[in-house]
Parts: sequence; structure tokens; C-alpha cells
Amino acid sequence: MIEPDIIEQTNDKAAASLRADYDALGEHLDRRGIDIATVKHKVASYGIAVPSWGVGTGGTRFARFPGAGEPRDVFDKLDDCAVIHRLTAATPSVSLHIPWDAQPAADLNSKAEEVGLAFDAMNSNTFQDQPDQAHSYKFGSLSHTDAATRRQAVDHNIACIELGRQIGSKALTIWVGDGSNFPGQTNFTRQFGRYLDAATQVYDALPDDWTLLSEHKMYEPAFYSTVVQDWGTNLLIAQQLGDKAKCLVDLGHHAPNVNIEMIVARLTQFGKLGGFHFNDSKYGDDDLDTGSIDPYRLFLVFNELVEAEADPDFDPMHMLDQSHNVTDPIESLMISATEVQRAYAQALLVDRAALAGFQDDNDALMATTTLKRGFRTDVEPILAMARLEAGAAIDPVTTYRASGYRARVANERPAVSGAGGGIV
Amino acid sequence: MIEPDIIEQTNDKAAASLRADYDALGEHLDRRGIDIATVKHKVASYGIAVPSWGVGTGGTRFARFPGAGEPRDVFDKLDDCAVIHRLTAATPSVSLHIPWDAQPAADLNSKAEEVGLAFDAMNSNTFQDQPDQAHSYKFGSLSHTDAATRRQAVDHNIACIELGRQIGSKALTIWVGDGSNFPGQTNFTRQFGRYLDAATQVYDALPDDWTLLSEHKMYEPAFYSTVVQDWGTNLLIAQQLGDKAKCLVDLGHHAPNVNIEMIVARLTQFGKLGGFHFNDSKYGDDDLDTGSIDPYRLFLVFNELVEAEADPDFDPMHMLDQSHNVTDPIESLMISATEVQRAYAQALLVDRAALAGFQDDNDALMATTTLKRGFRTDVEPILAMARLEAGAAIDPVTTYRASGYRARVANERPAVSGAGGGIV
Amino acid sequence: MIEPDIIEQTNDKAAASLRADYDALGEHLDRRGIDIATVKHKVASYGIAVPSWGVGTGGTRFARFPGAGEPRDVFDKLDDCAVIHRLTAATPSVSLHIPWDAQPAADLNSKAEEVGLAFDAMNSNTFQDQPDQAHSYKFGSLSHTDAATRRQAVDHNIACIELGRQIGSKALTIWVGDGSNFPGQTNFTRQFGRYLDAATQVYDALPDDWTLLSEHKMYEPAFYSTVVQDWGTNLLIAQQLGDKAKCLVDLGHHAPNVNIEMIVARLTQFGKLGGFHFNDSKYGDDDLDTGSIDPYRLFLVFNELVEAEADPDFDPMHMLDQSHNVTDPIESLMISATEVQRAYAQALLVDRAALAGFQDDNDALMATTTLKRGFRTDVEPILAMARLEAGAAIDPVTTYRASGYRARVANERPAVSGAGGGIV
Amino acid sequence: MIEPDIIEQTNDKAAASLRADYDALGEHLDRRGIDIATVKHKVASYGIAVPSWGVGTGGTRFARFPGAGEPRDVFDKLDDCAVIHRLTAATPSVSLHIPWDAQPAADLNSKAEEVGLAFDAMNSNTFQDQPDQAHSYKFGSLSHTDAATRRQAVDHNIACIELGRQIGSKALTIWVGDGSNFPGQTNFTRQFGRYLDAATQVYDALPDDWTLLSEHKMYEPAFYSTVVQDWGTNLLIAQQLGDKAKCLVDLGHHAPNVNIEMIVARLTQFGKLGGFHFNDSKYGDDDLDTGSIDPYRLFLVFNELVEAEADPDFDPMHMLDQSHNVTDPIESLMISATEVQRAYAQALLVDRAALAGFQDDNDALMATTTLKRGFRTDVEPILAMARLEAGAAIDPVTTYRASGYRARVANERPAVSGAGGGIV
Repeated sequence: MIEPDIIEQTNDKAAASLRADYDALGEHLDRRGIDIATVKHKVASYGIAVPSWGVGTGGTRFARFPGAGEPRDVFDKLDDCAVIHRLTAATPSVSLHIPWDAQPAADLNSKAEEVGLAFDAMNSNTFQDQPDQAHSYKFGSLSHTDAATRRQAVDHNIACIELGRQIGSKALTIWVGDGSNFPGQTNFTRQFGRYLDAATQVYDALPDDWTLLSEHKMYEPAFYSTVVQDWGTNLLIAQQLGDKAKCLVDLGHHAPNVNIEMIVARLTQFGKLGGFHFNDSKYGDDDLDTGSIDPYRLFLVFNELVEAEADPDFDPMHMLDQSHNVTDPIESLMISATEVQRAYAQALLVDRAALAGFQDDNDALMATTTLKRGFRTDVEPILAMARLEAGAAIDPVTTYRASGYRARVANERPAVSGAGGGIV
Repeated sequence: MIEPDIIEQTNDKAAASLRADYDALGEHLDRRGIDIATVKHKVASYGIAVPSWGVGTGGTRFARFPGAGEPRDVFDKLDDCAVIHRLTAATPSVSLHIPWDAQPAADLNSKAEEVGLAFDAMNSNTFQDQPDQAHSYKFGSLSHTDAATRRQAVDHNIACIELGRQIGSKALTIWVGDGSNFPGQTNFTRQFGRYLDAATQVYDALPDDWTLLSEHKMYEPAFYSTVVQDWGTNLLIAQQLGDKAKCLVDLGHHAPNVNIEMIVARLTQFGKLGGFHFNDSKYGDDDLDTGSIDPYRLFLVFNELVEAEADPDFDPMHMLDQSHNVTDPIESLMISATEVQRAYAQALLVDRAALAGFQDDNDALMATTTLKRGFRTDVEPILAMARLEAGAAIDPVTTYRASGYRARVANERPAVSGAGGGIV
Repeated sequence: MIEPDIIEQTNDKAAASLRADYDALGEHLDRRGIDIATVKHKVASYGIAVPSWGVGTGGTRFARFPGAGEPRDVFDKLDDCAVIHRLTAATPSVSLHIPWDAQPAADLNSKAEEVGLAFDAMNSNTFQDQPDQAHSYKFGSLSHTDAATRRQAVDHNIACIELGRQIGSKALTIWVGDGSNFPGQTNFTRQFGRYLDAATQVYDALPDDWTLLSEHKMYEPAFYSTVVQDWGTNLLIAQQLGDKAKCLVDLGHHAPNVNIEMIVARLTQFGKLGGFHFNDSKYGDDDLDTGSIDPYRLFLVFNELVEAEADPDFDPMHMLDQSHNVTDPIESLMISATEVQRAYAQALLVDRAALAGFQDDNDALMATTTLKRGFRTDVEPILAMARLEAGAAIDPVTTYRASGYRARVANERPAVSGAGGGIV
Repeated sequence: MIEPDIIEQTNDKAAASLRADYDALGEHLDRRGIDIATVKHKVASYGIAVPSWGVGTGGTRFARFPGAGEPRDVFDKLDDCAVIHRLTAATPSVSLHIPWDAQPAADLNSKAEEVGLAFDAMNSNTFQDQPDQAHSYKFGSLSHTDAATRRQAVDHNIACIELGRQIGSKALTIWVGDGSNFPGQTNFTRQFGRYLDAATQVYDALPDDWTLLSEHKMYEPAFYSTVVQDWGTNLLIAQQLGDKAKCLVDLGHHAPNVNIEMIVARLTQFGKLGGFHFNDSKYGDDDLDTGSIDPYRLFLVFNELVEAEADPDFDPMHMLDQSHNVTDPIESLMISATEVQRAYAQALLVDRAALAGFQDDNDALMATTTLKRGFRTDVEPILAMARLEAGAAIDPVTTYRASGYRARVANERPAVSGAGGGIV
């Protein structure tokens, strides 16, 4: 898909400059008592999952403006995801959305093997109606007032587990759009009772080595209330269901001004942090590219994660979840994967012993300065060197553009107009 | 469409109760020095426009769940709008969206005459691409970097004026989705310069007795910046274009916590309040039914409007603009029209001389109590009596349901699935 | 303090009008199948606690503009609170703040008996330093890094319990300002661990028939993070401490746009709703008069409470908590107490069987209309009649002003300038 | 105040490391086509004003926790400000607040000369009552309903101009707390009319070479409405008053989620950007240290400023305005001054020709990547070298701590407890 020559050629042009930057950074970090190779090794070992739906162009309720060469099915999507991993060496797995990506397990496994990718968490979809569906989700799914509709939603989730089991996935992510648009439309208590009951049925079908990831969101598509509206409700769900149930944090699903890194810390402290959907936002669930709006917030989340790494059992799942409305999705996902790595690398640079000391002394100024020193460091040479050593691209976007991949697939895949792809 | 018998029958059942309530309220208001008939007369004279697109079921970027009997074209929409006006006597005009509603003027006029409706402001659409369009609006329309795309958007607006002129409209509402999703994607200053230049071209084509209504919105579909993001920018536009250019306030287009009634007051004070898009919201541009989330805020807006009525030249346009995702749009629009009337009637009850006195004395408690006394009064008997006397329904929803209209049109109009209708 | 004659005289002027309004409302409600006397009885039985600090004029960090005749100590405060109850018959108890109100229990009991009031929840204060205090709370109290400071804060809370036990209180409300102003200033996890440890020590000192009310708040006085920032963290606290620990909801302590009534429902469902601090807000923790900004939101909270009343064990504590910066605090508290009663009465009018039916049928429009019909009803005659029958004032503010109370105490109590009183 | 030896000694320890970092950065920037010396020169020429009140410990409405050695008067404040400039070479001027800093002009000038500082904008205070004041500002100042109160506020502003004229200031900043706490408390239109009338009187007293800076703020100390609530109203003021009137943007005075850099761009485009109050915030007007919460937002503001530098007449005033509640104010102001310089330096690194090209091509990904590359670069060596070359400290905080200044002044200046200092 991407000619090795292309990578080699573009890397060759940038390698000398990179080595100079890398060496200078290494010397600088050495003066700070940090071994650059150790950081590079950790970054190189870090991988983040790509959402299958992310490689299509997203849209809003107003319009979707298709891009060229959009994937026609899950196999095209896997091709695109493979390009991302080929050039970044940062995205070894893909998260599927069912029924959008429903195909025979054998075909999925064979394609994944072909392109060198694994499957991350399965995502169920009970926020849209499918053509052949017996009961509509217009008024809810797992929390619907009608038992048959809830049953249908439960069964769909169980089918997702079943397919996931066959393709090596180890987690099911549940996000529902259930809620209400009017005060009084729903009884909050009975609705949540129904949700818990249905979710328990899904949980009971979960293999022992799986995790059920419950995802909260403040609003949209429901605009007055949402059944899993915040981490408080999400925590109640994870507590009620059991040890295999954990909370998934999507960075864009909170109320304005909320301190997200603190939610990450709380869920971690109580063993209920299951994973992330990374993206960025300025207003609502904007699903913008990770780190594009507030990179320091992303760093502060990773600060918590590095803090928690001390516990060997701590292992939340990481996934990108974005809507690419005005960029080439492959480019956005490549950049976003590196932004996540960047925040991780910066967090690794923080002098944690010094930080803890300043915290104990209530030396707020030096504590925050210590933290920010990690953020301030330009770790791009570390990320680029990790890519180079993994055979990926020093500059993924330049290499991708040089490869002509988009034009090539545009010839094979006809443009699809129409409305937005679902973005969780 | 609605059998007069149905209206008569349902009214008959409710009339005695209404008369008792109306008389009791009349006596109560008389004790407060208010003549109920005067208020009723003002309410009966009040009309609000219905958006043609509002009678279809709305949706979100995640899904649209169609309703039964949705209108297939503008003529079906006018039928539905006529039902709303027939039962509420509150919505004498319809606002068209072009190209969605583009039809020969003669056909539009003939249908409007048939159903007894007039045409309110014209709405242009440069936030979606049409199948046969030369230039895409993916990266903007009136503010696009490409001159030909801007020209296309200008021409479309001028075509809207031309059609509107033939069907008796007197205003063009411009709302664009132009903006950006990334810091740096656009140069704010040059983008706004292009916008002003293009808008001036549209303005120059405006008939002398027309108003150009410019609509601001904080975000969506653009998620980092929007070219007409708030009333400050909107004011600059109206100032730059000229006297016929005014600002339109959509209640859902502001930042969290913003005091909207104050914006209404400011624009009124400086002669730049052109009109409203009424709806309600809890989170973003939720486009919920007017008055369904925060009825007091709606009242406070009408408090400003009643305050400004003293000026005989003050005449902003009023329109509903909502997305009906989980209700029958006809029912929602009927209720919303009465909610607007309710806020107007409540604002009329405020003892303005007493209020002004308390304000001058800085008697905050009595001032707010005086205002709230108007809001607290249950004016439903006034609204219902105005409807009854106009030959409409005491209880529009009950009457509508009894009429079987929805089932009837559902037989004639096939269901349309797919993604959301555009809501401005 | 308030001459009975004054009440009688002002009531006499308003009684005829009230009786006419009450009778008309009674007939109207009768047509809706509601017995007005039953509602009036429930309203008359409802009482809400007044905060002792609420009768002083509040302020902001910028300034405090003192009012005339402000209370000099807790005994003056109890006099003022007694006026509120005398005129509204709605505020039978007072909530004390320690050390502001620390006085010998015998003196407090004797004064309370004299003015006919009881004591509600005790409030501890570890967000300010007292002159003779060994350790400063500048960097926290129950969660401070220093063990001696935490111990001091624990001891203070235990002292509050001890005093409360002697004056008949049955609850301790804990609100702390602990948090941080800079990313990195504190380690979220260790800080919360310390908080839980200290709170457990307080909990262990709680009598068996007491409730520990934990209060969350998003921000202020800490502006980057707050240790008990939301109901999720608050829930964890209540779960960790035990059955006697419950969550207190202050209406102004949430992120923008948050659905507070839903939090009320969740905490109720899981047996952890302990009580309320009622007030209203537009921006942050504005501590404005209850119901003055968004009365429908207040109603929606009471809708949940009436819904939950079916459970005989459901008995959260109700308290006003406001900052009166530009009004006479007595007047504001009287009006606010009636606003709470109003929301309660309106919620009682909702046809719950019909509502449940519409909810089951997903008839969103009729469900919300049913709810709003309760809100729309002007229940003032019910509240006023309940007051009249209890010997209180039909119109508390008019009567209060006629009484000359404020001028009288202004003669006795010298004005105090300076900065704002603490408002929790 | 700060021994030159101390600076020299601490600089000596850090100089070698700095030179290595600076050289490495110079080589890196050279590869990007940027001359590091040019950037350093611009940074070295940049200065930001310090607010006199910023060197005292701030507080909240709940409490103020004093620090050691707080300044007792404006002369102490100027000493502290001199330390900041001595160690950073970035803060050559001080902005006074009247009447807090009111002293004979000769004394102020003599002290300023002694410590080597100039005076920036004058700040009037009509949001607090002074002991000897005839009329209270409890219900407003420039917009008060009472003419004598407005006159008093006008006269105070004119007195500020008069004093400023004698000490070399060239600007008056007006911020008022006028607004309301209840719907109906004030008539928005009449209140704003009064404000404009009074502000015009102040404007008329302005020397020809002065600027009147009008500052908007969404809320606080007024919690329902504020007379100059946003940049829209601020723009109207600047337009009404005349050419010498411009808008001041405080980064913390906006609604949640608002795009502040866009407001900066709009005001610049229409010639009405007058200056800044820099700080940072997460929730409301938190007045946290500049760049401590969202450094990328600060960078995006400076991106606009660098963009506008092309116009030689563009010269907005820059000032810090923060409340230091938990840090040593001198340390916070030193760090904040360097954070502002950092954002400026990063913005200078942006390849503007490339950026403009990507913008014209709607290459959103490369545009934002180009912008972010500037932000990502660690410019600390440039800032530190500029300081070193100016005889200031490579590491201002370390040097300051080594100097023992705080302990020294703590001996001379007794601690002051009590409530918060006013922060605009």
C-alpha cells in the first residue's frame, strides 16, 4: 500500500536533521538526569487503537462533505488503518463498530493478518435503526420502556461479544444515545433501572477475560437528559455490574470547564478506569483531532496515567475517536496518534520525586513548574526516532502525501455523498 | 384538512371549563387593574412564522428516526403548516428554505392562497452541497478563500431574494456554517473581510423595503471558530452593510450562561434587532421546543420586547426554529406557538410603572417580584379564549389527535429514512 | 418583634382578594380532580431551614456593602430568623455555622425556645483561619498534607457534633474549600485518600441517629481542582463512610448546563440523597435567591422529590443557602422560602398517573405538557392561605415593611463594613 | 534589594547549560530558516506591566490567607515590582489602582525613579466604597440611577486621569462592577444609557495622547447582569466615545468555551483593541497565573498579535492581572511575565508565509501543524538568554529564593489578615 521506497526516500531527506535534534535533546535530557533511550523505548512500546469508522469522512447534522477514496467497507477501512500504522508504528489495532463492520470472523481475521493489525474493543450500535430491525431505537435501546426493544439491544450486544471473541477482541464498549428531549419525557429512576437490568444481561454474557467498557456522555443525541450522563452514573453502572465492568472516558463528553484529569484520577483510584476515547473539543462533543485545541489538558491526563503506571495491574485501553470533517482522515489519525504519544513522552519527563516533594511542601509554584517543564520539552525527536527505528516515517504526513495512496484508492472507491457517519 | 366539526366538537367539551377559568382570571386581573380583553386582543393579533423545514422530523448526526406521514415537498409542508395555523390561529406565515423549497413562484403563491398562509423571511442554504453545484461549501461559502465559490454563494442569496420578491416575502435570513475546525485553519481577519465583501454584494441586491437578517451562532457545524460567532460580530456586519441589515437572535446560538435578554436589549437600543428564531436549549444548539427547558428565560426576552413596543417603529420578525426528533412536528409547533404567546401575554401583565419605580429606587426585591408576578400568572385561559374566538381549537393537540390528520397523510406520504434535516 | 396587630391589619386588607383567588383556584383544581385543601395541608406542613449566616448581608471578593441593622451575633441572627418564620410560617429551624455561631449550648437553647425555632444541621468551617488557630487552612483542611492540620480540622468537626448534640441538631454538613489552584499543586489521589481518612474519623464520632451530609462543589475557593468536586466524588465519600453518610446537593455547585434534577434522582435511587442547599445561579456559585433565575429548574427538582415521597423513609433535609448582597436578607429569605413552597405545591399538582402513562407510551409531548401544567398553575393562593391560617402574613414583605423591624434593629445594631461573609 | 552577587552566582551555575541549550536551539532554528538572535531581540524588547495590587496576596469571598511580608502601601509595592523587573527584565512598568495607590505625584515619581520603573495605565475604582465617600456604589457607579452618584464616579475617574498625567501614564482603564442580581432589578437600556453618558464625561476629560480602555466582564460582582458584559457591549462603548476609546480584553472575563483569540482578531480588525489583562482561568474569572491552565490559548492570542504587528500603528497595552492566593506574588508574577514572553516567542517562530499558503489552500491539517510547530518549540533558552544578557536572572525563582528578599521584607512589614484584595 505504501511503497517502502517512499518511506526510505522521505526518511533519508529528514534523517540528518532528526539525528542532530535527537542528539541535542539527548544531551539536554542528560543534564536533567533523564535517559532519552529509556523514554524512546517506552514511546515505541506504546500503541493506540484506531476506530474503524474514523477513516471515513465525518459530518454534522447539517451536512457531510465526502472526501476522495472513502472506504466502502470494513476491508477498505482496514487497508486505511494499515497505512496509518505503517507510517506511524503507533496504531497496531483497530476497533470495530457493529453492524457497520459486521463480516464473517474468518474474513476479518484473514484481512487483519494480511495487513498486520489486531482487533481492539468491539463497539455495539443501538443508537441507529437498521433496515431489517424489528424494534426502533427512536425512544431508547437498553433503557427503552418496551421489554422487547431492550431484549433486542441486549441480543445485539451479545452478538458483538460473540463476533469479538472470534477475532481476538477482549472488550465490549457500550455507548447508548438513550435519554430524553423534554422534562418529563422519561422517569429518570425507572429508566436507569431498566438500563442496569439490561446491561446486567449483557455483562452476564461476557467472557471471563473480557472487560465491559461503559461510556458516559453529557448530551447528544438526547438534549434534555442522557441515561449515562456523567462519570457518577458511569461509576454506579460499573459498581453494579461487577469487576469486569469499567468506565470509559471520552475526553469530549463532559460539561464545560470540568476537570477531566481529576475524573481519570478518581476512577483509577477506585479501580474503575477502563479506557479512553481520545479526541479534543472546544464546545461540546466536537470530536476534533486529539490535542488540537488544548494540548496541555491531554498532557495532564497522561500525567495521571504515568502516575498510575506504578501499579502493574493498571492497564486501561487507549483509542482514538474523532470525526474528520475537513481533513484526510488518514492524516488526522496519524497526527493524533503522535499527539497521544507526545503527551505520554512529555509526562514521562516529569521529575516525579521532585514533584511529590513540592506537593508535600505545598510549594504550588514549583510543583506546577516541575509539571510544565515536562510539557514544555519538545519531544518530537524522540517520537520521530522511534518511528524511524521501527521502519515507519519520520514525517508521516509528508511521506503519505508522497505515496499517492489517496489518489490511488480514489480511483478504486467511488465517492459517497449523504449524511454523517456515526461517531461515538 | 381538519374538519370544522372536529374543532367544534372538541371545543364544545372544553368550553364551559374555559369560560369559568377565563372569567375567574378576568376578575383576578381586574383586581390588579388589568383589563383581560385588552390582553386577549393583543395576543390574538400576535402571529409567529413557522419554518417550512420544521414540519419534517429532525435528527442528529448520529441518526434520524423518521415519523409517519412526513411531508415530501414544500406543498405537503404548507399543508402541515396550515393545520398548525388552523388549530392555533397563531402562525399565519411560513418561512421557506431554498433550495429545499424552491418551486415556481406561481405554484407557491397558489398553494399559499389555497391554505391561507403568507410567506415570511426567505432562508438561503450555503451550508450544504447540492448535487449539481459547481463549487463545494466544504470549506466555506460567503467567506470561502475561492472567489468563484463566494460568487456562487452570493448568487444563490440573490436568487432567494428574487423568488422571495415574487411570493411576497420581505426579508432574507443569512446563516452560514463557515468557520474552521482547527486553530490556524483560517485567518480570522481575512475570512471576515471576505464575508463582509460577499455579504455586501447580497445587500446591494436587496429591495428597499426588505430586511437582511444576519444570524450568529457560536459553533456547529464548525467546531473551533465560526465566522459570525456572536452578536458582537453580527453587530459589525449589520453596521457595515447598512440600515436594512439587522441581527437575528436564535435563542440557542449562544455560549453557556449568556444573558440573552440583555443582548436583545442592546440590539434594540441601537436599532439593530431584526428578528428571532425561537427554540429552547439546555446544552448547545439543541433546537428543543420553545419554552420547554427554561420558560422564564423566554418570558424575560418578551419582557424586553414589550418594553420596546412603545416605539412604533420597533417590529422584529418572529419565527420558530426547532428540530422535532421525538414528537409529531405539528404538535410541537402548535405547542411552541402557544408558548411564545404565553410569554408575550405574561409580559403584558407586568405593571411597568411600578417596575420602573422599583428600578429607580434600587428596590431589587420588589422589582423582581413585580416582574415575576406577570410570569406566575396562568394566562392559558386568555390564549385559549383567543383561539376559540378565532375559530381555532381550545386544546390544539387534543383536537389534532382527534382529527386523524397524521394517519391520513401517512397513507399518502411514504416514510423517508436517512439522515437529519438541516436545522438552522 | 413583629406586632401581631401589623400582621392582622395587612392581612385584613388582602384577605378578601385572597379568598376570591383561593376559591377560584379551588374550583379550577376541582375540575382537574385535585383537592385544594389536601395540597394546602401538605404545603402548610412543609418547612425549610434558614442559614444563620444568611441574615447578614453578603458580599463578593471585591466588596461587601453592609445593610442597616445587621445582626451582631447568633442571638441577633435568631431574632431575624424568627421574623422570617413569624411572617411565613415556613422556616421553623435554623442551621448554625461554627465557629461563627459558637455559644454555650444553654444560651442557644434558651434563645431558640424564646423565639420558637429549632436547630437544623450544624456546619463546620475549615475554609477560614480563626485568630487563635494553631494550623492554617491556606493549603487545605481535612485533606491537608500535614497530619496535625488534618487532625485540627477533624477535631473541629467533632466539636460541632458535640455542640449540635446539645442543641438538638441531628446532622453535620461538611463543606471544605480544599483543592488546588495549579495543575500539579496537589496529587489528586493522595489528597482524596487523606480526605477520606479524615472524614472517616469525623464519621466515627457521629451519633447513631445523626446524618453526615457531604457537600460537593465544582470550584471556588480553589480554581483548578476541588477535592469534592462533583456528585461522583461525593457519592464515593458517602459509600466509603457508611450508611449515615449522605450527599448534600447545593443547586449552585455544578458545572454549566448540568442536569441537576437527574443527580437528585440518581442519589435518591441509591439511598444517598441527604439534603439540599437551595439557591439559584446563572453563572457560578452565585448564591442568588432561590427560584429567581430559573424557577422551572427548581420545580423539576421538586418533581423528583414528590416522585420520591412515595417511599416513607425518604426524608432529605432542606435548607436555604444564599448570599444577599443587594436586598434586605430577611425579605430575600422570606420570598425564597415561599418559592420553595411554590415549587413543592406545583409539583404536587402534577397528574402522576397520567404522566407515567405518557412516559410508558413515549408520548414525549403529552408527558412534558402534563408536567408543565403543574408548573404553570399559579399556586400563590394556596401558599398565602396556608400562611393566613397559620397566623402568618398573606404578603410577608408588605407586612414586614409595615412593621418597621429593620429600622428598629438598625438603631440597636451598629453598621459593620468590611469584606464578605462566608457563604457555603 | 536583590544583591547583584546573588544574580551573578546563580547565573554562573546555570550559564553553561543555558549556552548549550541556546546553541542547540539556534542550530535547530537555523535548519528551519529562523535566526534565533532576531527572535531573542524581539523578546528582549518586549515588556509587560505589572499591577500594583498583584504583589499582595489575593483572596476569595470565603477567605484571604495572608503571606509573609506583604506590601503595606504603594511604595512597598513598587519595591516588590522592582524585584520582578530586576530578575526578569520583562516588567518595566506598573499599573496603579486608585485610591489604593493614591499618593502625591512627586512621591510616586521619585520612588519610581529610585526603583527604575515607569507607570502604565491608571485604574479607577468605583466598585468599592471608601470610608469618606458621599454616595455608595452598592447599586452601581457610572450607571447608577442617581445622578449625584454617577457624578461622583465620573469625578473619581477624572481625578485618576489627573494623577496619571503627573506620573507619565497615558491611559485610563475603566472597569465597573455595575449590573444587577435579579431579573428586573435594572432596566438594561436605561442603565446602559446612563453608563454611556457618564463615560462620555470621563472621555471628554481625557488628554489627546491618552487612551481610554474599557474592560468588559461577563459577571461578578453582579450575578444576573453586568452593564459591560461582553465585547459586543464594549465595542459599542468604544464606538460611541470616540477614537481614543478602545477595548481591553481580560482573558478570564468571557463565557465558557468562548473563542477569545477571535475576539482579539475582530477588535484588531476594527481598530478597537486597546490592551490586555493577562491571566488564566478554568471556571470563571479565576485570575490564575497566566498560561498555567491553557498555555495553547495564550499562544493563540499571541498568534493574532504577531499577525497584527505588520501594522506599525498596532500597539495594544499589555498587563498582567492575577490573584495570587497560594503562591508568593513576586514568584507568580515573574513566572507569568516569562509565560507571556514565551507565547510571544513561540508565535514569532510560526512560518507565516507557509501558514497563509495552507490557509489559502484549505489545507487545515498542515495549517494547524504549522501553527503548532511554533508552540511546540521549547523557547526557554531564548528567554533565559535574553534575561542573562539584560543582567537579569537565568532562573528568576531560584535566584529570588536565594536572595532572601521575602524573609527580609517580612521582618519589616507586619502581616495583615482579613479579606481579599480587589482584583479587576
